[in-house]
Amino acid sequence: MIEVGIVGGSGYGAVELIRLLQHHPNVTIKYIFSHSKADEPIKDTFPHLTHLTHHYEALDTETVDCDVMFFATPSNVSKHVAPDLVKKNIKVIDLSGDFRLTNRDVYQQFYGEAAATQQQLNDANYSIAEWSEIDQTNTQLVANPGCFPTATLLALHPLIDQKLIQQDSIIIDAKTGVSGAGRSLAQHVHYAEMNENLSAYAIGKHKHKPEIEQYVSHLANEDIKVVFTPHLVPMTRGILSTIYVKLNKQTTSEDLHATFKQYYDSKPFVRIRDLSNYPKTKEVYGSNYCDIGMYVDEESQTAVIVSVIDNLVKGASGQAIQNLNLMYGLNEATGLTQLPVYP
Amino acid sequence: MIEVGIVGGSGYGAVELIRLLQHHPNVTIKYIFSHSKADEPIKDTFPHLTHLTHHYEALDTETVDCDVMFFATPSNVSKHVAPDLVKKNIKVIDLSGDFRLTNRDVYQQFYGEAAATQQQLNDANYSIAEWSEIDQTNTQLVANPGCFPTATLLALHPLIDQKLIQQDSIIIDAKTGVSGAGRSLAQHVHYAEMNENLSAYAIGKHKHKPEIEQYVSHLANEDIKVVFTPHLVPMTRGILSTIYVKLNKQTTSEDLHATFKQYYDSKPFVRIRDLSNYPKTKEVYGSNYCDIGMYVDEESQTAVIVSVIDNLVKGASGQAIQNLNLMYGLNEATGLTQLPVYP
Amino acid sequence: MIEVGIVGGSGYGAVELIRLLQHHPNVTIKYIFSHSKADEPIKDTFPHLTHLTHHYEALDTETVDCDVMFFATPSNVSKHVAPDLVKKNIKVIDLSGDFRLTNRDVYQQFYGEAAATQQQLNDANYSIAEWSEIDQTNTQLVANPGCFPTATLLALHPLIDQKLIQQDSIIIDAKTGVSGAGRSLAQHVHYAEMNENLSAYAIGKHKHKPEIEQYVSHLANEDIKVVFTPHLVPMTRGILSTIYVKLNKQTTSEDLHATFKQYYDSKPFVRIRDLSNYPKTKEVYGSNYCDIGMYVDEESQTAVIVSVIDNLVKGASGQAIQNLNLMYGLNEATGLTQLPVYP
Amino acid sequence: MIEVGIVGGSGYGAVELIRLLQHHPNVTIKYIFSHSKADEPIKDTFPHLTHLTHHYEALDTETVDCDVMFFATPSNVSKHVAPDLVKKNIKVIDLSGDFRLTNRDVYQQFYGEAAATQQQLNDANYSIAEWSEIDQTNTQLVANPGCFPTATLLALHPLIDQKLIQQDSIIIDAKTGVSGAGRSLAQHVHYAEMNENLSAYAIGKHKHKPEIEQYVSHLANEDIKVVFTPHLVPMTRGILSTIYVKLNKQTTSEDLHATFKQYYDSKPFVRIRDLSNYPKTKEVYGSNYCDIGMYVDEESQTAVIVSVIDNLVKGASGQAIQNLNLMYGLNEATGLTQLPVYP
Repeated sequence: MIEVGIVGGSGYGAVELIRLLQHHPNVTIKYIFSHSKADEPIKDTFPHLTHLTHHYEALDTETVDCDVMFFATPSNVSKHVAPDLVKKNIKVIDLSGDFRLTNRDVYQQFYGEAAATQQQLNDANYSIAEWSEIDQTNTQLVANPGCFPTATLLALHPLIDQKLIQQDSIIIDAKTGVSGAGRSLAQHVHYAEMNENLSAYAIGKHKHKPEIEQYVSHLANEDIKVVFTPHLVPMTRGILSTIYVKLNKQTTSEDLHATFKQYYDSKPFVRIRDLSNYPKTKEVYGSNYCDIGMYVDEESQTAVIVSVIDNLVKGASGQAIQNLNLMYGLNEATGLTQLPVYP
Repeated sequence: MIEVGIVGGSGYGAVELIRLLQHHPNVTIKYIFSHSKADEPIKDTFPHLTHLTHHYEALDTETVDCDVMFFATPSNVSKHVAPDLVKKNIKVIDLSGDFRLTNRDVYQQFYGEAAATQQQLNDANYSIAEWSEIDQTNTQLVANPGCFPTATLLALHPLIDQKLIQQDSIIIDAKTGVSGAGRSLAQHVHYAEMNENLSAYAIGKHKHKPEIEQYVSHLANEDIKVVFTPHLVPMTRGILSTIYVKLNKQTTSEDLHATFKQYYDSKPFVRIRDLSNYPKTKEVYGSNYCDIGMYVDEESQTAVIVSVIDNLVKGASGQAIQNLNLMYGLNEATGLTQLPVYP
Repeated sequence: MIEVGIVGGSGYGAVELIRLLQHHPNVTIKYIFSHSKADEPIKDTFPHLTHLTHHYEALDTETVDCDVMFFATPSNVSKHVAPDLVKKNIKVIDLSGDFRLTNRDVYQQFYGEAAATQQQLNDANYSIAEWSEIDQTNTQLVANPGCFPTATLLALHPLIDQKLIQQDSIIIDAKTGVSGAGRSLAQHVHYAEMNENLSAYAIGKHKHKPEIEQYVSHLANEDIKVVFTPHLVPMTRGILSTIYVKLNKQTTSEDLHATFKQYYDSKPFVRIRDLSNYPKTKEVYGSNYCDIGMYVDEESQTAVIVSVIDNLVKGASGQAIQNLNLMYGLNEATGLTQLPVYP
Repeated sequence: MIEVGIVGGSGYGAVELIRLLQHHPNVTIKYIFSHSKADEPIKDTFPHLTHLTHHYEALDTETVDCDVMFFATPSNVSKHVAPDLVKKNIKVIDLSGDFRLTNRDVYQQFYGEAAATQQQLNDANYSIAEWSEIDQTNTQLVANPGCFPTATLLALHPLIDQKLIQQDSIIIDAKTGVSGAGRSLAQHVHYAEMNENLSAYAIGKHKHKPEIEQYVSHLANEDIKVVFTPHLVPMTRGILSTIYVKLNKQTTSEDLHATFKQYYDSKPFVRIRDLSNYPKTKEVYGSNYCDIGMYVDEESQTAVIVSVIDNLVKGASGQAIQNLNLMYGLNEATGLTQLPVYP
């Protein structure tokens, strides 16, 4: 069995890892860490786990001993701890943003604090699982992608890879459920203010903008900028990313659909919808699926791509487990085949 | 493998059976029936199952051949079909109300139509799984309990069984999420009218009132009536039943708690909360748990019991699978150990 | 014009007073106080008022000069300030609980802090507006009722006044939208945890229990205790109180309905529904109405009364204005006739 | 008093007209028409109006006699009836789409049925109230704009009018609450399916696309096409339109903001937000405001405009009353100054 630990045990990423790993035949949870709640039973924080006897522990990098450590922490935690674990040959899967950006200046600009060292960033493996470059032998630290980038990049990847689009034309109008804002209290996610409310936020300034740009630039082998507008939607889970791109040449909806089918037919978690059938967030709720629909506006040769995920599963903990599977050479779907919870 | 069929394939009960049975190591789904949608792919009705290749079929009782048939149908369907299947030695688990009430007059009064025959009703086994009288050898048809009765009776069972309460004092204030109203369209569950709305309905006239009365009367061996008020809450899943009973003798919260712990410590799906810790519906979302909390108002010697379930799991499809496990002598938790989806 | 000030300007009670008073032809808002936000424009806290130029001020009891002061504050504020204003002949309408309970020990027990002086409590006028004893000449301080008590007491008043019920039989199962918890942040009202969630809380310990008991005891002229269970419902506004009482003598639904009609036909804000028509919270959303429906379970001679209000209007700011109207001898409906916002 | 009638009395547009007109000092409601519900009391359909005594009537164009008729009907109703009323000198304000498009072929394509006559279309006055060309003397029929177009065109108007943008670059990502889908039942707006769900729909095919194109083309005096993607959000009220346009020349956020302030400072219902302050739908809930925020992505010279309205007020009934005010030379804000309901 692969023994894992989870850092950041009092947040939503951790609790979703616990839920999903329960179904993983090759993994056992050895530790759940929470600095602030050390020694408390986990059920005091999460009564839905009231039958579990786990207690939170305080992480001691000296004595900790397991195969894989998940960081389900806010930014600015893992970069201080993960390198020590890697030195001990503990593999790290980091759900935070600390190792996603390789340009330290960009990290500084968007995260407002100093980045990890350039070497550490170079060694990290940013892994959209469907297009992963994880190397079973050498990958020690996986930077698990952000939620918006996951939904968006799975849609953009074939377009960029096939050079189908004008690279300066990418506009991403992304919408997320509120769990993406985490468990920490804030006025704008107070129930009475968030319910029946819809807003755009952090336009031009969201951490996920440079993350998307880095991926598509790398894939295209040239510098690409995107326009990225996140929105907060009154629902708990789900991301829907609506992506607008100008096509390079005359393309029909059918052409585009064929391209996507070709890229994703062998990928178990990406489901390309039939034309005129646009995916809804609830249709992936609680599951690791990313569903993609599309339309080509032939007048303006603009493709509109709609991509949905559950932000806590494919957008965080599910993809982290998928990456673990890749690190261990397991079938990528191991432990992740739960159907969406509907309705 | 136990081969099963599902009748009523276009409803929420069916789709939840499909979700849950995916985790059952001993069961395979052979048929999904829908009269109105015969030959259509199931993914046309439920796009969240877009990767599945199942098609709906029309049920032909002559040719059908499987081990167990689930009826996830409205009332007034199974009573016309299930008896023929039983004759063919197909076990039936009926999620509808057709075989729950043994008194044909009461059925007529509350369901507004003629009941099954008295013999058929006598032969059916009403099974709250924790207190089931299923007989592996002889039980051919299980009447799976209603959602409100399940949440309520798991709370009332120890109180009645221990003769702790005044039997004419039972008041049940029950609240359900909207999926309990099914998938059929109606004005009061139209989103714009149901959202941000809370109401009581069918006071004194709900089908689940006589179902609760029948169970407690049988257990107490005398005729008991209850006051039962259902409410509709703007959320998709979840039932919370708040139960008020007058205690027979001086009892503390601690006494009551000890009684419940004794009854349920060995039951994997009933979690008795610590005192002052009342369960919330989201804490069982998507799972087969029933969580129970309690308080004794010592001034008036009134016990207040709070019992929560997911109406589609423990209140319908999950308990149906638990009953299947009992019919086959399997561990009752087989295939049902998923954790709640939180948040 | 009646010049008013509002203390507690950064909370929901205040902002609802601002909304409602805009329609009042006899009232002008002179001050909006907030200690923590003094000198800030109100639109920084409440962007929905972005066209208003008001600034918060810090209350100085020496220099303040207006006719009426509303306290829309948490408990433990008004009792320290209001008496000084009364001395200056400023009338006070207190939306908090500080002056509602006349028994200082009970206040200490339920509020966890010392009460105002006995004389101050005696001088305060607790005013369910429909049954108010406000005296235009002498009332200086009105204790505006709590939200749950308002919905509940409007239903109980005719029953107690007519001696129709067994006084030890009152069970109140009350449900509220989340705005009742105020604007202060807390984990249980964090959107991702509160959405799709339903719970009971503070059973036997809620501040509104003794408030209800005081009113009905006073009306009945004997000591009455009630069982009171509040619930938190995933919606922003609305209270629905389901009340169970044993009737004293053989009574039909029609009898009960006639009694309620008689009591409320002349009251503009209490709408008695026809039999079998139970009110929903959305049907009073944003308005000052209290709608009441009822059912008599003839088997057990239990009356079930369903009473709904908007907790922020009739349950707080709307009733406060209604009480202001009574203090000034105006028509009680002045400024309060807005229709519910539906859907 | 201006005597008005309302056709389509059982829908949300009508009921919102009733709510808002209650505050209008110059208007009285003479008729509420509903063919299917003729002679029924309106409170049977809308219990939130339980204190009103109005009954539905059947419209007879021969005998009807009032000053203004509102059509709050689905498409394909008013075009058959309104011309007869106009002949009788009854002014018509049509909230449906029947008279919005002047190109009969486009109407046929997007509405799927034959348009009104060309003369009738030419005579209709499409009126975004802030930029209205209503002529008090001659305007007999106002085509009240659609909800998405209202939010979108108030944002686009200054950009087009000032020739600030590349006219083939307009992308509109629009999101609406569910009441925009009306009161008729449909599976996708069934509560259990719509709650916690977000989707795009009718991409490239929505009726409001040509309506937006017609307005901007007319204003620019050249043919402009837009990309328009509507989304359905799990909330009852509110539209948020996120608009992406390429700027013609180097422009800063401050420049753009100054332009918008100049256009809207004198308009009572359009509130331009400070930079970095993006409006949320709840901040206009129940009111006639349109709030607009903006950001310029200087890298790509893309402006992102965020515009919010309440779809049932400024997006329908509120703007209809504003247009009535313009037709009668009243202050455009008469009867429409209610503050947003918050929270």
